[in-house]
Amino acid sequence: MYSVSVRDHMMIAHSFRGDVFGPAQRLHGATYVVDVELRRPDLDKDGIVVDIGRAAAALRQVMADLNLRNLDDDPAFAGRNTTTEFLARVVFDRMVSAIRRGDLGVDTAVASMRVTLSESHVASGSFDGPVGDAR
Amino acid sequence: MYSVSVRDHMMIAHSFRGDVFGPAQRLHGATYVVDVELRRPDLDKDGIVVDIGRAAAALRQVMADLNLRNLDDDPAFAGRNTTTEFLARVVFDRMVSAIRRGDLGVDTAVASMRVTLSESHVASGSFDGPVGDAR
Amino acid sequence: MYSVSVRDHMMIAHSFRGDVFGPAQRLHGATYVVDVELRRPDLDKDGIVVDIGRAAAALRQVMADLNLRNLDDDPAFAGRNTTTEFLARVVFDRMVSAIRRGDLGVDTAVASMRVTLSESHVASGSFDGPVGDAR
Amino acid sequence: MYSVSVRDHMMIAHSFRGDVFGPAQRLHGATYVVDVELRRPDLDKDGIVVDIGRAAAALRQVMADLNLRNLDDDPAFAGRNTTTEFLARVVFDRMVSAIRRGDLGVDTAVASMRVTLSESHVASGSFDGPVGDAR
Amino acid sequence: MYSVSVRDHMMIAHSFRGDVFGPAQRLHGATYVVDVELRRPDLDKDGIVVDIGRAAAALRQVMADLNLRNLDDDPAFAGRNTTTEFLARVVFDRMVSAIRRGDLGVDTAVASMRVTLSESHVASGSFDGPVGDAR
Amino acid sequence: MYSVSVRDHMMIAHSFRGDVFGPAQRLHGATYVVDVELRRPDLDKDGIVVDIGRAAAALRQVMADLNLRNLDDDPAFAGRNTTTEFLARVVFDRMVSAIRRGDLGVDTAVASMRVTLSESHVASGSFDGPVGDAR
Repeated sequence: MYSVSVRDHMMIAHSFRGDVFGPAQRLHGATYVVDVELRRPDLDKDGIVVDIGRAAAALRQVMADLNLRNLDDDPAFAGRNTTTEFLARVVFDRMVSAIRRGDLGVDTAVASMRVTLSESHVASGSFDGPVGDAR
Repeated sequence: MYSVSVRDHMMIAHSFRGDVFGPAQRLHGATYVVDVELRRPDLDKDGIVVDIGRAAAALRQVMADLNLRNLDDDPAFAGRNTTTEFLARVVFDRMVSAIRRGDLGVDTAVASMRVTLSESHVASGSFDGPVGDAR
Repeated sequence: MYSVSVRDHMMIAHSFRGDVFGPAQRLHGATYVVDVELRRPDLDKDGIVVDIGRAAAALRQVMADLNLRNLDDDPAFAGRNTTTEFLARVVFDRMVSAIRRGDLGVDTAVASMRVTLSESHVASGSFDGPVGDAR
Repeated sequence: MYSVSVRDHMMIAHSFRGDVFGPAQRLHGATYVVDVELRRPDLDKDGIVVDIGRAAAALRQVMADLNLRNLDDDPAFAGRNTTTEFLARVVFDRMVSAIRRGDLGVDTAVASMRVTLSESHVASGSFDGPVGDAR
Repeated sequence: MYSVSVRDHMMIAHSFRGDVFGPAQRLHGATYVVDVELRRPDLDKDGIVVDIGRAAAALRQVMADLNLRNLDDDPAFAGRNTTTEFLARVVFDRMVSAIRRGDLGVDTAVASMRVTLSESHVASGSFDGPVGDAR
Repeated sequence: MYSVSVRDHMMIAHSFRGDVFGPAQRLHGATYVVDVELRRPDLDKDGIVVDIGRAAAALRQVMADLNLRNLDDDPAFAGRNTTTEFLARVVFDRMVSAIRRGDLGVDTAVASMRVTLSESHVASGSFDGPVGDAR
C-alpha cells in the first residue's frame, strides 16, 4: 500500500459536557496539528498517490472552515463534544467530500485515509477508515 | 477505527546477553519515550475513545514501576533481554491490566493498542495487538 | 554558561483586540507547548543548574493556574492581548516568583531564563531575560 | 505484531514530468528523512525483531547508493517520476534484497515493512507491504 | 528580549565546488526547513513583536523566489557555494529587505533576527545578527 | 554570527549522589540526543563554518568514547555527578580538543559552541561558551 501525508493546523476554542472531562468542561482551546494520510494500492500513471500540493490545498480549505473559531457556536457540532478523536472524524469526512468533488484530481483512487490531530506534544487522536465507507 | 495516543517516558539501565548485541552487552542505559495508542471502532456516549487524562495517568503508573531502575535487577525480567521491542510488549501487557482493572473507565471497549518505545531520534520498537488476546 | 530546560503545556481560549489580528479577533484557542530554559554560569556542588524535577514541578504549577481556561476572563490580563510573546513573559515572571519563593531550591543562582511558547508546528514566541531584572 | 524502526536520510536532485507537478517539473531537490519499520509476529531467541544496528547499517547502504546524486541521471529510474511515494517503494525493495542476502541476520523472519520518506516538516510518502510479495 | 518565530521550507538542487565537500560536489539537493526568529526588546501597543501572520507571509515570499529551483542556475549566487549557512544569510538579508519595505508592518522595530535552515534531522546552519547591520 | 549544528546520540548508565536527586540516586540510564552548534563570525573561502561531515565525524568519535557504558565506572568522572548539564560540558571540552587537533580542518576559526543534551522529549541540559576559554 502506498500513501502520502500532508500536515496543517487549526486553533480553536471549545468546552466539553460530561463529568469525565473534569476541568475541560470549562471553555478552553487547542491547537490541532492535523496529519492526513491518503492511501491507495497502486500509483497512478504519474507515479503518485495524489498530488501532494492538491492534498495540502484541500486540507487547508477544511482547516479554514474551522480555524480561529469557538466550536461551541458551530451548528454542525450542536449537542456533540468536539473531542480530538471526534474532530479527526470530522476532518476525515470533509476530506472525503473534497475527494468526491474532484479537488484532489479527477481519477483519484484513494482507498483509505488516516487523520491524526495532535493536541500537544504528548496527546493525539485519530480516525482511520476506508474512503468508500465514509458518509 | 478511532484512536487516542498518550506519551510519557522512562530512564533505565540494562545490559543484553548474546553476541548479536556487540558492545550493548555492557551495562548501559536508555531513555524510552513511550507512546500508547488505544483504538476502538466507535466513540462512547461522551464522544471519546477513552479519557486522555485517565490514559495518561495509567501510563504514568506503568512508567513509575520501571523508571530510574536497573532492569537487570528486576525479577520480572530474569533471563530475558529487555530490548526495546520486548519492553514495548511489557508496557502493552501492563496497560491491558490497567484497562481490565477499570483504571481507564468502567465500560472502556478498547479493541487494540500499539505501544511504541523510541530509544533515540533514529530508532524505536513497538508492539501492536488486540487487547483481548494479550495475556 | 550552563542551562537546563523543561517542557510542559497548556490549552486555553482567548481573543485579540486590534485590526492587525484579523480573524484572530474572534474567540479561538491554542495549545502552548512551553519550554523554560534556566541558565547559570557555574554548576552547584551537586553538579546541576537546578534540579530538573523541581523545575518541572514549578512549571507544572505555573501551567495549572492558566490551563483549561478562557484567558479573556482572567482579571490578570484585563485590557491586554494574551499573545504568544506576551504569555511567554507571563510564564517568565511567574517562574521568577517560583525561584524567589525557593521552589527550585534554597540557593539557586539562576542568572537568566528563556521561555518559549510553541503555538503550532510552525510558530512560537519567547521572552528571554535576566532573572534579576524581572519584576 | 512486533516491530523495530531505524532512521537515516539522503539528499538528492530530481525533476518530474507531467502537468500535475507544476513548478516541480523544474530541476529541484529534496532531503528525504527515511524511516524503515520492520515487523514480525514473534521475537527471536535473543528477544529482538532484528538487530537495530544491522538494520541501520543495511539502510545506510541503501542510502549510500542514492545519496548526493541527481536521480534524473540514474538509469534505474529512466522514464519514471522519482516521487516521494515511488522512492519509498525503491527503498522498500532494496531493503527486501538486503534481508534476502542475509545482511540483517541469517534467520530473520521479517513479515512486513513500512518505509516512510519525509520530504519536509509537512509532507511524506510511504510504502507498506509484506516482505514475501516484494519483487 | 521578546521574539516570535515562523517556519516554512524550500526544496532546491545545487552542487558545491571545493575538495572539502567530497561527494557533495555532485549535483544533489535538499529540503531546507527554515525558521526565522524576529526579536525586539519591547512589545508594540498590540502586545506583539510582529504579526505572526505577516511574518509568515513575508517568509513565504522569500521561499517562493528560491523554491523548486537549481540554485546553480541563479545569477545571484554565481561563484558562491550555496551552503546551508550561506543560504541562512541569504534568507536573513531578504527578510531584512521585507522588513524595510514595510511588509511586516509600518512601525516594526525588529532589533535582530536568527535564521536557521535544517537540512535534515541531524544537521542545520544559521545566521544571527542585528537587523540594522544587514546589508 | 554564522553557525552549523550536528546531531548524534549516546546511551549510558549512571547514578547520582545527593539527596536532591531522589530516586535518581539509583542506578538508571539515559539516551542523550546531542546537538553541537559551532559558531564563527564569517564564513571561510568555501562558504562554510566548518564542514558538516567533519563536524559530525568528530562528534561521532566523542560519542564512541562514552556510548554503551556505565559512566559510574569511568575514572574521568570519579566523584562527579554525570548530570545532563555536566555531560554537556564534557562533550564541549572534547569537541574543543578535536578542533585543536585539527579534526574539523586546519584553519577552523570556531569562536564559540553550544552543546545540548536532550535526555527526553521534555528535558535537556546545555553548555555554551567561547572555544578559546575552554580548557
